Amino acid sequence: MSYMPVTASMFLLAETRDQPIHVGGLQLFIPREGQSSTELAEEIFETFYSCTDVHPLFRKRPAQPVSLVGSLMWSFDDEIDFDYHVRRAVLPRPGRIRELFRYVSLHHGTLLDRNRPMWEVHVIDGLEDGRVALYTRIHHSIVDGVSALRLLERTLSEDPDDRSGTAPWNPSLMRRRPKPTAPAKGLLSRIGDIAGTATGLAGEVVGLGAAAAKVAYTAFTDDAFVPPLHAAPKTILDVPIGSARRFAAQRWELTRLRAIADEMDITINDVMVAMCSGAMRAYLIDQDALPDAPLIAAMPVSLHTDNDADGNNITAIMVNLATDQPDPERRLATIIASTRKSKEVVRSLSPVQSMALGAANFAPLALATVPGFVRYTPPQFNLIISNVPGPKTDMYWNGAKLDGVYPASIPLGGQAINITVATTADHINFGLTGARKEVPSLQRLLTHLDTSLEELEKVADVGA
Amino acid sequence: MSYMPVTASMFLLAETRDQPIHVGGLQLFIPREGQSSTELAEEIFETFYSCTDVHPLFRKRPAQPVSLVGSLMWSFDDEIDFDYHVRRAVLPRPGRIRELFRYVSLHHGTLLDRNRPMWEVHVIDGLEDGRVALYTRIHHSIVDGVSALRLLERTLSEDPDDRSGTAPWNPSLMRRRPKPTAPAKGLLSRIGDIAGTATGLAGEVVGLGAAAAKVAYTAFTDDAFVPPLHAAPKTILDVPIGSARRFAAQRWELTRLRAIADEMDITINDVMVAMCSGAMRAYLIDQDALPDAPLIAAMPVSLHTDNDADGNNITAIMVNLATDQPDPERRLATIIASTRKSKEVVRSLSPVQSMALGAANFAPLALATVPGFVRYTPPQFNLIISNVPGPKTDMYWNGAKLDGVYPASIPLGGQAINITVATTADHINFGLTGARKEVPSLQRLLTHLDTSLEELEKVADVGA
Repeated sequence: MSYMPVTASMFLLAETRDQPIHVGGLQLFIPREGQSSTELAEEIFETFYSCTDVHPLFRKRPAQPVSLVGSLMWSFDDEIDFDYHVRRAVLPRPGRIRELFRYVSLHHGTLLDRNRPMWEVHVIDGLEDGRVALYTRIHHSIVDGVSALRLLERTLSEDPDDRSGTAPWNPSLMRRRPKPTAPAKGLLSRIGDIAGTATGLAGEVVGLGAAAAKVAYTAFTDDAFVPPLHAAPKTILDVPIGSARRFAAQRWELTRLRAIADEMDITINDVMVAMCSGAMRAYLIDQDALPDAPLIAAMPVSLHTDNDADGNNITAIMVNLATDQPDPERRLATIIASTRKSKEVVRSLSPVQSMALGAANFAPLALATVPGFVRYTPPQFNLIISNVPGPKTDMYWNGAKLDGVYPASIPLGGQAINITVATTADHINFGLTGARKEVPSLQRLLTHLDTSLEELEKVADVGA
Repeated sequence: MSYMPVTASMFLLAETRDQPIHVGGLQLFIPREGQSSTELAEEIFETFYSCTDVHPLFRKRPAQPVSLVGSLMWSFDDEIDFDYHVRRAVLPRPGRIRELFRYVSLHHGTLLDRNRPMWEVHVIDGLEDGRVALYTRIHHSIVDGVSALRLLERTLSEDPDDRSGTAPWNPSLMRRRPKPTAPAKGLLSRIGDIAGTATGLAGEVVGLGAAAAKVAYTAFTDDAFVPPLHAAPKTILDVPIGSARRFAAQRWELTRLRAIADEMDITINDVMVAMCSGAMRAYLIDQDALPDAPLIAAMPVSLHTDNDADGNNITAIMVNLATDQPDPERRLATIIASTRKSKEVVRSLSPVQSMALGAANFAPLALATVPGFVRYTPPQFNLIISNVPGPKTDMYWNGAKLDGVYPASIPLGGQAINITVATTADHINFGLTGARKEVPSLQRLLTHLDTSLEELEKVADVGA
């Protein structure tokens, strides 16, 4: 058994049957020349199934599945029940992307069993376009979204002729040096390598309750940015949620966002957030539910460096989405100002302080399990928007080309929509995960994202 | 909203993430002449999907998904999210029964969402033998196993040319007089029609705690039969369980059991219980875990009459399985004596008393959610064995012949195996549901059931 840091255990303690806390990823592969989708699916499945040497990260589970604060420990299983963790699925006809998203939606809403290592891999064929999908989910107490994607990427190769494809839990992969991935520029490179002991320290500083978070926070508060425990406007997303999920995803050419960013001297991340802002505004207008005050987004910020250990290593900043602003140019300006201010504050903090700030920002995660909390307390933020870096070049698994990476993340009571994007070589891939019953017409957000991107192209005077 | 009787709410209160409390059923159909399995699967799916007029039983859900004793109410949804409740699935190659059971295992272990009506139907093709499977699960707070099977049966017809096949929730079905089903002879016909008000009364008498159960019980205790709160031997089944499940099933010709029953002047149910006893004995010997004292089985007894309302209406008797006895003939004699005594006692009770007895017998269900209860308290019984009546003649859904009905039921902390059988026209269908991690080699029980049946044939001097 080994000690579990608070940054991991809070994801176990905050979890309820209505609020499963695992991150998911959907990867799509094109079979290599002459290979059918069923053959590729079976090749992946057999390879994974026979990779019985399993890294400890994929063997650990909570030693006491139902426990109380302070007494959580990890234990490590020697044997993995592959029949349970590695699954095959075939989509029913007509095998459209719609059937695939439905599969992901229905599986993403169930709890992972705490009596075994908390992860699953589903190898899916039956898509009419001949691609093979890999849907993976892993509990947030084990890894954050950045680590999860990195684990999957390590199974891939830049070489289409490479046939050493293996399973993400192969211990030899962990020893491979990860490819330098650079999308999280500036901020991340400035915040140093704080993995390891810092996690324990942050846990001690922060605790879990709102009061503790407030105490931790007062040490370094700054009036000029969106502070933790600030009240965001009440919206239709700020409701208790059921466990059922809806998942939708789409990708856009990265060149389109890059053109806007270059023209306006901003980051691709700024453009992405502005797309989300415009889309959320349009979506809420559709629902006749746009609040007067602007939405606040929580944006997890990875503190991972290229060489640190896998696991949980995030903080978060709060961004004013300026959804009250009809003009896209002014909206963009407000978003950029808010993001920069938040990043400056994080940058000025010590590693321990920045993790404490993250924990303070995510305190509502734990409080959402208290009956009535979500219903009667103003939200601190309205939705989560994450940006996780994917591979920067074309990648292959045993010659099958990776063609799309869509994150499926965690809606919460109070934050019923999660938008997570992954950037890959040529695309920005949006994964929308919403509480199924509480968020109507989630897929309409995809249309609004597209419209919002067109608007930004007009603002920057680029593109079509 | 409407009041929820304690007999329903106790199944909600006793449920945890490790102990989902829903009943499942797997039905297999042979496509009609000239129809492919995919065509039949799509026909069933489309028919179900378009049956948008939904009986209240399939629209009700707990008004407050997380609530406390005494305040549980039902509310009724007007719209059903068919994309969620009605699912299509295709088995991966090679599409053996093994892949089907795996599908059922993996789905049976997840909680039903309490924020919507708590049922699902999965229409599955891809079986190599060309049959189509229907896996259905429904929360025990809504119906018991007998009602669940009856609901499915009402969608069927004895006439292979009948094309009025519809969904189980079609309100017009509830008005159809159910076929007289007679397998639960004697006992059931003697216990009168006590549906309705009696449920509320029993709830008031019994409450949920062990103390209340004891008080209710002392009114009609009898030393000669296995009483509630009697300590069964500690076994490997008496452990806290995880949520993951394993499901295995097989059927035997009913003529084989009938020959034994006729020869020995006992019931088919007696033969079934003796099969289970022999199989459990052999299984525990395999595991080097046979206790000195005999296993005690809880056998739910339906109080349904042919014309009563659907819902929950059960009590239970405790049966000495005589697993300590190596000789099959003596084992059978002990089982029969124990069953008869238990039935006599139930028969002598008033309807309210018999439901109170059932609630007392199932009090551990609620107590199993108390941390440590299962670990430190001797079990009252070791496993649950149920017998639910299926159709007595060949039945068809739009001309597709029903060919196998296998129940998937509820293992509990302390009772990690559930054996439920359904008798149909020519077969007795065994469904074994076990806690996946805690019950090793569940499928070996199928072999032992077969051996046990052969032993009983020798005892009765019938068969091969």
